[in-house]
Amino acid sequence: MALDLGESGETWLFDCGEGTQHRILQAGIRPTRIRRIFVTHMHGDHVFGLPGLLCTLNLACDPAGIDVYGPEGLGGYLEESMNRTGWGPEYPFAVHVATPGIVFEDNLHVVRCAALHHNVPAIGFRVEEKPRPGSLDAARAEALGVPSGPLLGLLKAGKDVTLPDGTIIPAAGLTLPPRPGRSFAYVTDTAPCDGGVELARGADLVVHEATYTQADADRLPQRRHSAATGAATVARDAGARRLFITHFSPRYQSPAPLVEEARAIFPATDAAEDLLSVEIEFSE
Amino acid sequence: MALDLGESGETWLFDCGEGTQHRILQAGIRPTRIRRIFVTHMHGDHVFGLPGLLCTLNLACDPAGIDVYGPEGLGGYLEESMNRTGWGPEYPFAVHVATPGIVFEDNLHVVRCAALHHNVPAIGFRVEEKPRPGSLDAARAEALGVPSGPLLGLLKAGKDVTLPDGTIIPAAGLTLPPRPGRSFAYVTDTAPCDGGVELARGADLVVHEATYTQADADRLPQRRHSAATGAATVARDAGARRLFITHFSPRYQSPAPLVEEARAIFPATDAAEDLLSVEIEFSE
Repeated sequence: MALDLGESGETWLFDCGEGTQHRILQAGIRPTRIRRIFVTHMHGDHVFGLPGLLCTLNLACDPAGIDVYGPEGLGGYLEESMNRTGWGPEYPFAVHVATPGIVFEDNLHVVRCAALHHNVPAIGFRVEEKPRPGSLDAARAEALGVPSGPLLGLLKAGKDVTLPDGTIIPAAGLTLPPRPGRSFAYVTDTAPCDGGVELARGADLVVHEATYTQADADRLPQRRHSAATGAATVARDAGARRLFITHFSPRYQSPAPLVEEARAIFPATDAAEDLLSVEIEFSE
Repeated sequence: MALDLGESGETWLFDCGEGTQHRILQAGIRPTRIRRIFVTHMHGDHVFGLPGLLCTLNLACDPAGIDVYGPEGLGGYLEESMNRTGWGPEYPFAVHVATPGIVFEDNLHVVRCAALHHNVPAIGFRVEEKPRPGSLDAARAEALGVPSGPLLGLLKAGKDVTLPDGTIIPAAGLTLPPRPGRSFAYVTDTAPCDGGVELARGADLVVHEATYTQADADRLPQRRHSAATGAATVARDAGARRLFITHFSPRYQSPAPLVEEARAIFPATDAAEDLLSVEIEFSE
């Protein structure tokens, strides 16, 4: 799954199964924008595409390089793969072990991870945009006698201004409160669990695995996956805004029955099908 | 590349880059028929699809299992990949180091390999069908008084027969000479080399890499690949019947200029494009 950050120019990937690099091309994602890759666990359908993608990025990568974040064992897996197939990234490259808490932070985003509940160690991720500065309360500034023009810009930037008549207008109180950024949670592979709820808390968009219908989940041996109803319960308990379910068992020709079961619990559910592109909307 | 053996019910793969398992489905190849996989060298575009395919075959594999033949290092690479992603084949599985000479033989086929000339150790493969028993010279048998019926079947199987009048008709001389089976050579990645010519000797169909046009090959640093003209020269020197070139540099939008250059030297050249299916014809 790819997250296009727009503003910062970066694209982040979440997991990288076999064929991800081909899907990237099909989806029209520019490989040069890929900057960070977050990996949930060491199962093949989540990592087998990583050596090939990193190899291909030798032809395309931005000099800024690639940072990979994932479970212990990921670095060794990649190193072995590189050594045994005689290549290495020709760009700055680092693998970071992701432990619960903050995994990455810059001036625009913070990424956290939490432990999930799978048959091998697995983590989910939450990306938060940092709050955006509040906009200027232009009506109030006008009422205080601030003329339109550069003084408004200074106030918006948080600076006090002096009017032509010597009156000092403090910026405080003239900017509206900071607006919360958007939040996104990526929760797979896992049974429904507290870590998933924590990551999905109030999130604008949650991607959560839903491998089975409830009937199949009851019938099949426990594999540490979620039924669609479980994914929906996590989204509901977390007070999330929107849920996309994914990771359907190949036994289902269509995700429709899983979406239907989930919607009974969390109506704002859709299926995350291949090549689907969704804009995460601001909550206000 | 897949070789469908028809008669024996097996499909053999040659190399397994990322996404091979998806192409197998697109090509309509039944995964349960895959029985042997031949790998030329330890570069990612030839092996990165192997862990995923072997993993998927856990769902599909025939109990006969999978044998993989390739360079030293392949077994360790697969073992590492399995250990680090927590899985293993649930079917009989073996990796064989392929050294020049006979790599595999059964009652229908023999597979040989030879060293190629690449920037890492690389081998090519040649598959030969064993000669088919010659058919019965029915006209001659009739002239000798053999009635149509079961006696003809015995003669065809190489057994002498006794006619109703007591005459013994020896099978020797009544069956036509054994008919040669078909031969196929897979030669990549390599510069044009003696090993390639050896593998392609008189082959009914040769797949040979052709990365560049001659002009680009002259201009670019030596990477141990072939120009289309080099592939064609190998096919011509080997007295092969038909050449398919593959492994085109992404700099070419279409293989047409490479095919044109090759045809000037070896007219029976075509491009082996994705999903192309070709019947190897008997030479007689």
